[in-house]
Amino acid sequence: MGRPVMRGGAMDANDQVRALRWDGATLQILDQRLLPAEVRWLVATDASETARAIHDMAVRGAPAIGLAGAYGLVMAARALASADAFGWQAGITAAVRLLAASRPTAVNLAGALSHLEIIARQGAPGDWQALERAADGLWAADLAANRRMGELGSAYLAPGTQVLTHCNTGSLATAGLGTALGVIRTAWAQDRLARVFATESRPWLQGARLTSWELNRDGIPVSLIVDSAAAFFMARGEIDWVIVGADRITANGDVANKIGTYALAVAARHHGLRFMVVAPSTTVDLALAEGGEIPIEFRGPEEVLRLAGRAGPEPLLEAPNPVFDVTPAALIDVLVTEKGAIERPDARTLAALMARS
Amino acid sequence: MGRPVMRGGAMDANDQVRALRWDGATLQILDQRLLPAEVRWLVATDASETARAIHDMAVRGAPAIGLAGAYGLVMAARALASADAFGWQAGITAAVRLLAASRPTAVNLAGALSHLEIIARQGAPGDWQALERAADGLWAADLAANRRMGELGSAYLAPGTQVLTHCNTGSLATAGLGTALGVIRTAWAQDRLARVFATESRPWLQGARLTSWELNRDGIPVSLIVDSAAAFFMARGEIDWVIVGADRITANGDVANKIGTYALAVAARHHGLRFMVVAPSTTVDLALAEGGEIPIEFRGPEEVLRLAGRAGPEPLLEAPNPVFDVTPAALIDVLVTEKGAIERPDARTLAALMARS
Repeated sequence: MGRPVMRGGAMDANDQVRALRWDGATLQILDQRLLPAEVRWLVATDASETARAIHDMAVRGAPAIGLAGAYGLVMAARALASADAFGWQAGITAAVRLLAASRPTAVNLAGALSHLEIIARQGAPGDWQALERAADGLWAADLAANRRMGELGSAYLAPGTQVLTHCNTGSLATAGLGTALGVIRTAWAQDRLARVFATESRPWLQGARLTSWELNRDGIPVSLIVDSAAAFFMARGEIDWVIVGADRITANGDVANKIGTYALAVAARHHGLRFMVVAPSTTVDLALAEGGEIPIEFRGPEEVLRLAGRAGPEPLLEAPNPVFDVTPAALIDVLVTEKGAIERPDARTLAALMARS
Repeated sequence: MGRPVMRGGAMDANDQVRALRWDGATLQILDQRLLPAEVRWLVATDASETARAIHDMAVRGAPAIGLAGAYGLVMAARALASADAFGWQAGITAAVRLLAASRPTAVNLAGALSHLEIIARQGAPGDWQALERAADGLWAADLAANRRMGELGSAYLAPGTQVLTHCNTGSLATAGLGTALGVIRTAWAQDRLARVFATESRPWLQGARLTSWELNRDGIPVSLIVDSAAAFFMARGEIDWVIVGADRITANGDVANKIGTYALAVAARHHGLRFMVVAPSTTVDLALAEGGEIPIEFRGPEEVLRLAGRAGPEPLLEAPNPVFDVTPAALIDVLVTEKGAIERPDARTLAALMARS
């Protein structure tokens, strides 16, 4: 990673939390591993540093890593600006491979890289600014999608709704506003929410460290609970909707998302509650038929063992650490994308949704 | 609390982990808050120190806190040995109240104290040794119950069974061997287990710190997972049985146990897996009709917030921390006590079981 630099804070000119800043030459990444204790920006100066920041989770969240990867490729292209046609193509291909390998489960990263790679291949060799414009376009489109999804999702929530969300799907995970958290923010602004529960989201604590921090900065109160307490509050009638994001959605409507999402969907169905997935259409991967085909990332055991006072695996102690799971479409009541919302998604309705302009 | 003393380790003469040691005058308590990093014994010299150790969770686990409370009352009785009849009765009553208030959910503590209080009231004033014999009897009975339950529960498990357990129900939670963990140990010795999963059990990490430590000391390998990953492994067919303990069982078979138990029961039923509760009959409270009547302990928010880098609650951040939940009898496939095992427990079958000698 590049050198860390201190900035004024995590806010942009509109006082919104941002995960990334692009200054035309380098990518500044808010180091989410340190939040909420410390606001520190890292500077990535090339594709390799960007890939490392994604792999090490300085930046995380499916849309945000897609955008980070895009700017990582822009930096690679900029360094190749004076290369010949062969060097340009080879360099772009190598950078795409490096960046795409940084995290496997979210499709947004591969999608963003593929989008820019086609532009690099079809345009003039060395025209890195065309890639920069494309990355800027992805950023603007993600932000617009989140605003649209916020409106579409919020419309489902009656005044007085009690919501539970999992992991972090806010400005830190996207170009801004957020997906599930965008719905929650919009519903809060529209005075529809009675209470927001955030699960702490072990092992990485996205809920405890990031979601509660983001919402508090917006003046939205949060009840933070351990993951395993969600069903307790469901049984007591304190939750009406579970609203989550997604890292990949397959053609039949199955959803890969943060580990624990599936357990929440099972519990929500058991209690007769409603379950909403909010994700931009860039998260939909029609190339995969169903959730069993999604590559599920397992991260190192130390993410689990550290908390137990163990440095690492021991001969008789292992800590398998899947960081995503798959929720079958049958457990999803509403799927919200910027193209529209569909209830009880399936292959037919999802294909029709994706065909909309 | 009394002064901490270092001992040779956490093992008794039979090389078994022990939560408590009674030396005829003081109660030595293995401080479970420090495990597995440090093996340190505290010495409680009176009822007040014992109550504090229970409240602060130096000792935890429904049967173990019942036994700790019993010896706490023995120490109170010993200090009252030369009191007159009035002082004896008043002192015993005060000590019972103090100890009973230390934790509310498990019934074993109230049951053990009630058992000794009757002996104190019916016997000669000052006869503290009668209470000591009664406490020793409870200890021996709990150990014998665990051995019996280990056999009864293990008989349900076919060779090659994959088990998931929650929280800690082992020697640290009981007089020895354990309840759910006693079944797992017995099944391991009988070569019936293919794999043992332990959930980390946030917020107190009983699984990560205690269960995995106990099993490893017995040479039993463990896969430690975050709580929210249990459903992921269920969906992959890697779990056949969920086996847990209990803190209180009501007349209709509802079970209060560590927060997260209920979510596991819901997920187990969703996947068609079997769910076993293992608890001595001292855990059954026929005075309560159903689980809604069980007092559920909420502990301080700092147990949740600490991990998020927050010192305590903030104006917009609360952390409701229920540490038990209730699993309805309808989700329980097998209830094992030392009196026998019953399938799909209900008020009728549980009453019949409790009537056995």
